[in-house]
Amino acid sequence: MASDFSEDDLIATLFAPIAGAAGLGLLDDAALIDVPDGMQLVATKDAVVAGVHFFASDAPADIARKALRVNISDLAAKGADPLGFLLAILLPPDIDMRWLQSFAQALGEDARAFNCPLLGGDTVHTDGPLSLSITALGSAPRGRMARRTGAKAGDLIYVSGTIGDAALGLRVRAAAEADLPWIELLSDEARAHLLRRYLVPEPRLGLAHAVRSLAHGAMDVSDGMAGDLAKMLRVSRVAGRVDMARIPHSPAVLEAINIEPALRDVALTGGDDYEILCTVALQNAGQFEHAAQTAGIPVARIGAVTPGPSSLPQFFESDGKVRTFAKGSYSHF
Amino acid sequence: MASDFSEDDLIATLFAPIAGAAGLGLLDDAALIDVPDGMQLVATKDAVVAGVHFFASDAPADIARKALRVNISDLAAKGADPLGFLLAILLPPDIDMRWLQSFAQALGEDARAFNCPLLGGDTVHTDGPLSLSITALGSAPRGRMARRTGAKAGDLIYVSGTIGDAALGLRVRAAAEADLPWIELLSDEARAHLLRRYLVPEPRLGLAHAVRSLAHGAMDVSDGMAGDLAKMLRVSRVAGRVDMARIPHSPAVLEAINIEPALRDVALTGGDDYEILCTVALQNAGQFEHAAQTAGIPVARIGAVTPGPSSLPQFFESDGKVRTFAKGSYSHF
Repeated sequence: MASDFSEDDLIATLFAPIAGAAGLGLLDDAALIDVPDGMQLVATKDAVVAGVHFFASDAPADIARKALRVNISDLAAKGADPLGFLLAILLPPDIDMRWLQSFAQALGEDARAFNCPLLGGDTVHTDGPLSLSITALGSAPRGRMARRTGAKAGDLIYVSGTIGDAALGLRVRAAAEADLPWIELLSDEARAHLLRRYLVPEPRLGLAHAVRSLAHGAMDVSDGMAGDLAKMLRVSRVAGRVDMARIPHSPAVLEAINIEPALRDVALTGGDDYEILCTVALQNAGQFEHAAQTAGIPVARIGAVTPGPSSLPQFFESDGKVRTFAKGSYSHF
Repeated sequence: MASDFSEDDLIATLFAPIAGAAGLGLLDDAALIDVPDGMQLVATKDAVVAGVHFFASDAPADIARKALRVNISDLAAKGADPLGFLLAILLPPDIDMRWLQSFAQALGEDARAFNCPLLGGDTVHTDGPLSLSITALGSAPRGRMARRTGAKAGDLIYVSGTIGDAALGLRVRAAAEADLPWIELLSDEARAHLLRRYLVPEPRLGLAHAVRSLAHGAMDVSDGMAGDLAKMLRVSRVAGRVDMARIPHSPAVLEAINIEPALRDVALTGGDDYEILCTVALQNAGQFEHAAQTAGIPVARIGAVTPGPSSLPQFFESDGKVRTFAKGSYSHF
């Protein structure tokens, strides 16, 4: 059991090897980080709890990746480059050393892959569920962080990647009785794809530079696209419309919707996409699309921002019908 | 119950009003923080869990203060000025709105008092115990953060305030059968003092400037003075000796030790002091003591750093006997 090991042992054997230089070997009480002159610090914090954001029985490597990646996704959507992260782990008694080794190994791999080193943290025993709280730190040139409040009437609305995979992946993972019919009709490939996208999101760091250079409003889609778009428009005091046919879905999501049409709303309102939703002025659209293409990240132009007063975005069906999603957002809370 | 309120409601009603400007009204996914040119970022993270670091039945105001202050204490000991903090709250179902209001109010008062505004965070429901994870951010002039690894042979060892109050305060709070005899013999005043020091530590921010200007090695005393000193000497690759008669104790601790002499070891090895332990070169000692006096924070010169190889610090009794504390550190883990 993990309680056989002191916190100092865990730090020295598992976490110090994956720490960055600014973590001072995890020998100190604090990390010491250079924020280059002319840059601002961007800081974000997301906590994930077993039974809420992931399943306690998920692979430790997947849990590590998801905890870190949901935070890196926030940095990417703000147009920030990662500086590193701090991690608090609340460890229940049934976590053993082998679990922690897999966890730390995957965490280290992701930290290297995203250039986001471990800087420090805290490890505490709990009688409750496994919980991870990560603070990710990044930097952006002064005045360039993309704001959720920045959407402007006339902007085009873009979203990266595909929408709804993770929401359906969660249904696959949970495999509730009501979902079994369509899950069983899905191809193995589609099922695996959806599950993978739920378990391990792909933060779109490659878009960070384009976002901070070209986007007016930006956020990551973590609580459902329809609701997150509504949030951005509301705090930007504008309205918007979306062409539903343009919302990008993976072949796996399309396959699922084909079996069970009600899943389209799940795809639009479910959480865990971790794609970037942003608005770009018309005259910058070409440059933005080019930058995304260069980064190898697909982006889709799904609609446009319209003048305020702020209201729920209107989703246009291909037959001309208009829908809104009043409870469009999935809340983990 | 708190679950009657959405995370957005809680943020808007309780937390946005206590957020600093860099928190962007808590409307965004990240905080945007100016780290002035020529300064480095100092980042520290401490999590506290009900049943481990505090009692679930403690007053919400005290829980808020302790969670924030243990992090500010780390900044102070590194010689850093606070920039702000991010907070993750894991909320069990029995926390109600009134609890959260008291919590947020005290948190806001402390944030103002320590000039350490709320910048962002995350709120999540849990079936486990109430848990708080705070990341505190601060700044120090480039190259001036005080390191735990910086103690040098010949330095004097200083500690701020008084040692052992919180360790005995925890005994008072827990009121285990074995402790009842001495607790009952304590004066009401002493009992209240010890309890208060356990519940609400006093971070020594007023010493931060002196520490970064004048200290070689520095850390806060959170896991017991004897063990924390041993840690600092070990990572600094030096040894040290302490004159036990010079270790500062409050009248309340002295009263308790007078009743039950074994409590002296508890005072030296128990946790939660949140005082600053640091080493200062002989030629800077006068200046350090003067700075502390100006800041209104008592400091005591308790010993000296001696050349390595590193070994456990030697504690000299007034009768000349020498002791070491092999298991000198209290671990929350």
